[in-house]
Amino acid sequence: MDPTTKINIPESPLERIVIVGGGFGGLQMARKLVKAEYQVVLIDRNNYHQFQPLFYQVAMAGLEPSSIVFPFRKLFQGRDNIFIRMAEVTHVDPVAKQLQTPLGHCNYDHLIIATGADTNYYGNEELERQTLPMKSVVEALQLRNAILDDYEDALTTPGYDDRQELVDVVIVGGGATGVELAGSLAEMKTHVLPKDYPELHVEEEFDIYLIQSGDVILKGMSANSSEKALKYLEELGVKVILNSRVTAFDGRLVSLDDGRTIASQKVIWAAGIKGMPLPGLPPDTITYGNRLAVDRFHRVRGMDGIYAIGDVAYMEEPDFPKGHPQVAQVAIQMGEHLAKNLRYRHARGESWEPFHYHDKGSMATIGRGRAVVDIPKPEFHFGGVMAWLVWLFVHLFAILGTRNKLFVFLNWLYNYINYNQSLRLIIRPRSK
Amino acid sequence: MDPTTKINIPESPLERIVIVGGGFGGLQMARKLVKAEYQVVLIDRNNYHQFQPLFYQVAMAGLEPSSIVFPFRKLFQGRDNIFIRMAEVTHVDPVAKQLQTPLGHCNYDHLIIATGADTNYYGNEELERQTLPMKSVVEALQLRNAILDDYEDALTTPGYDDRQELVDVVIVGGGATGVELAGSLAEMKTHVLPKDYPELHVEEEFDIYLIQSGDVILKGMSANSSEKALKYLEELGVKVILNSRVTAFDGRLVSLDDGRTIASQKVIWAAGIKGMPLPGLPPDTITYGNRLAVDRFHRVRGMDGIYAIGDVAYMEEPDFPKGHPQVAQVAIQMGEHLAKNLRYRHARGESWEPFHYHDKGSMATIGRGRAVVDIPKPEFHFGGVMAWLVWLFVHLFAILGTRNKLFVFLNWLYNYINYNQSLRLIIRPRSK
Repeated sequence: MDPTTKINIPESPLERIVIVGGGFGGLQMARKLVKAEYQVVLIDRNNYHQFQPLFYQVAMAGLEPSSIVFPFRKLFQGRDNIFIRMAEVTHVDPVAKQLQTPLGHCNYDHLIIATGADTNYYGNEELERQTLPMKSVVEALQLRNAILDDYEDALTTPGYDDRQELVDVVIVGGGATGVELAGSLAEMKTHVLPKDYPELHVEEEFDIYLIQSGDVILKGMSANSSEKALKYLEELGVKVILNSRVTAFDGRLVSLDDGRTIASQKVIWAAGIKGMPLPGLPPDTITYGNRLAVDRFHRVRGMDGIYAIGDVAYMEEPDFPKGHPQVAQVAIQMGEHLAKNLRYRHARGESWEPFHYHDKGSMATIGRGRAVVDIPKPEFHFGGVMAWLVWLFVHLFAILGTRNKLFVFLNWLYNYINYNQSLRLIIRPRSK
Repeated sequence: MDPTTKINIPESPLERIVIVGGGFGGLQMARKLVKAEYQVVLIDRNNYHQFQPLFYQVAMAGLEPSSIVFPFRKLFQGRDNIFIRMAEVTHVDPVAKQLQTPLGHCNYDHLIIATGADTNYYGNEELERQTLPMKSVVEALQLRNAILDDYEDALTTPGYDDRQELVDVVIVGGGATGVELAGSLAEMKTHVLPKDYPELHVEEEFDIYLIQSGDVILKGMSANSSEKALKYLEELGVKVILNSRVTAFDGRLVSLDDGRTIASQKVIWAAGIKGMPLPGLPPDTITYGNRLAVDRFHRVRGMDGIYAIGDVAYMEEPDFPKGHPQVAQVAIQMGEHLAKNLRYRHARGESWEPFHYHDKGSMATIGRGRAVVDIPKPEFHFGGVMAWLVWLFVHLFAILGTRNKLFVFLNWLYNYINYNQSLRLIIRPRSK
């Protein structure tokens, strides 16, 4: 398709809102604009919404991708004012109020940038090339394939050191992703791998490292929860290394800033994210963490009719003078808030409400039957099995669609009873 | 790994049976050799068994790959005499009794070739390049992606003719695969696509062609069932073209041997299969359909200690003077029979029993709630909802593993009630 042609969307007398990105923020916004007096165009590079909090379960072969993603078209069936286009936005022209995509260009009256964040390698190209990221369901699948492949290879590798290089896993980053990955890898080590690979000596040979730059894991959570999570991980046999940074990884050897090295061919990079603003925006719209500076109404600094929400947005408010945490809850609340301002206040010429984030708490799970939960008001922390059940319930409730809820629930139940995932499949395209 | 080194399998005083291919035949054979006085090595290019009869449901977004494949390691957990290696066999040396693989070489006392069949393009390289095959779960997924991608593209394609090229599907081959695909595509056309793509005029624009070289579809089945299946397809709106062959396809235009053409960018090739014998066998072992000529004991002609079973084997017996049909039932019975001959007769120096195929009947499903079933003795044919229920039951029963049975059943039930699959996801690796 020639990008100078116009994208094929019906003409409408309504103002057009274009939302770029169907993650938690963009999707919530589109849902809140169903039947509104706007023509809404949702553009995403995929045809599905991804439920990011469970990527690590896909990577660990606990869930299938289809259980945690949801096709946009199914979600908006019968919603006449919502148009879905699968494309990558290549450029935005704020003066012409126009987006470029491989499907053609697209005009907007209001542009919502909900493009989220991508893995941040802090400029280290070697780490970008050599480590495994986990910011999409496809990357989670690739990680699963890499782990299973290396186990197969280890079977036919005679030397102890060579074999250990293959089976050991180094996870960089002690945030929720890193901690949850480490916990479920440890469960796999204990309950699944010894049965699948009796020829290997999993217990002695397989090490899981979690490397964290600061002196606590789960930095955004309470000290209480951080300590508990650390204890849980250590009970599961994860080697947690605090106050260390990975400085280099050549594909076989991980170097830490204190001079130590770890021999491993598999490094998972969960050490940071950066915003993904659209190409074409002026440089002065961009601030900390490669995010777009927005005011309390989500308006991108200096732009007309351009808004940002979720992980790509940086907003200061009195309770959050350094911006909000880059988590699903913030994105969802921002999407809903902006949709209401546009739908009920902009359309009637009323003045807009400023955004205020309501922290509902945070949680992380560490393997089977253990989690930590922080509730902000009244402040309250708890862990263990109870926290794990709360975690299960909250995530199950948040997953879109009856079918997905049902299948995720059954998978969890089945795995819990059997201590054993069935999804250890290495499925990848094969050239014809 | 250097292929001159030996594959890493423990030394054993037992004779070694190497099975190449874990399809219906190879898998059945390995299962029947559990705890036998043999060391059994199962080599497959994947780490999972694929349930081929349901590939078409994966292609039509009705089932997830994980519901119809099963990891070998899980299946043989705790079976000490079974060793699984994921590799492609690149060469067999019948004199040295040795296989070559990228993992190293592997000696055998008995070699079982259960490599099955691949798509046959009858030497037409253009068709091989341009059409979509469906002989693996990965190819089924790629077909799903192609169909969904083309629908997305059609949305932004203004011209009627260009759009029709994108959405029309041509299926070549009126065997079970072609018929079942055409039936479920027709269901998708009626029940799913109009809701997902209200902007397209699915009813008028989307045509499904099924092209069959002979004068009946489902040639291996009774005349009764063939006619019924044809009627069902036509009721569903499939355009069945009999007595025609596809001679060329340039990616946009399908040419038939009677001079007719069909404009379509998507041609699914299900018109034939050919055996996949291992490289290195002498040419005179190969006979009709690129299959290995075997006697009633599965011994490959002129070879010592080499056997073939399933789709890759060609055996004549009085009831089947032109060989057996290339279906799962034959492969399963062959695998079981050969395992018994080796386990109970060879080991004790007794004379072997010749193989005899017991035809248990055949069936095919055409969309939702319709199927045809042939029972051979006493001869009996039936169709409709009852046949469909039998089809469901038989396939559910044949799928390995409780979890997979449960998930397939729930998916079917869910889709039946909702007339709507949730799995319309375009998931593919993205380069880093």
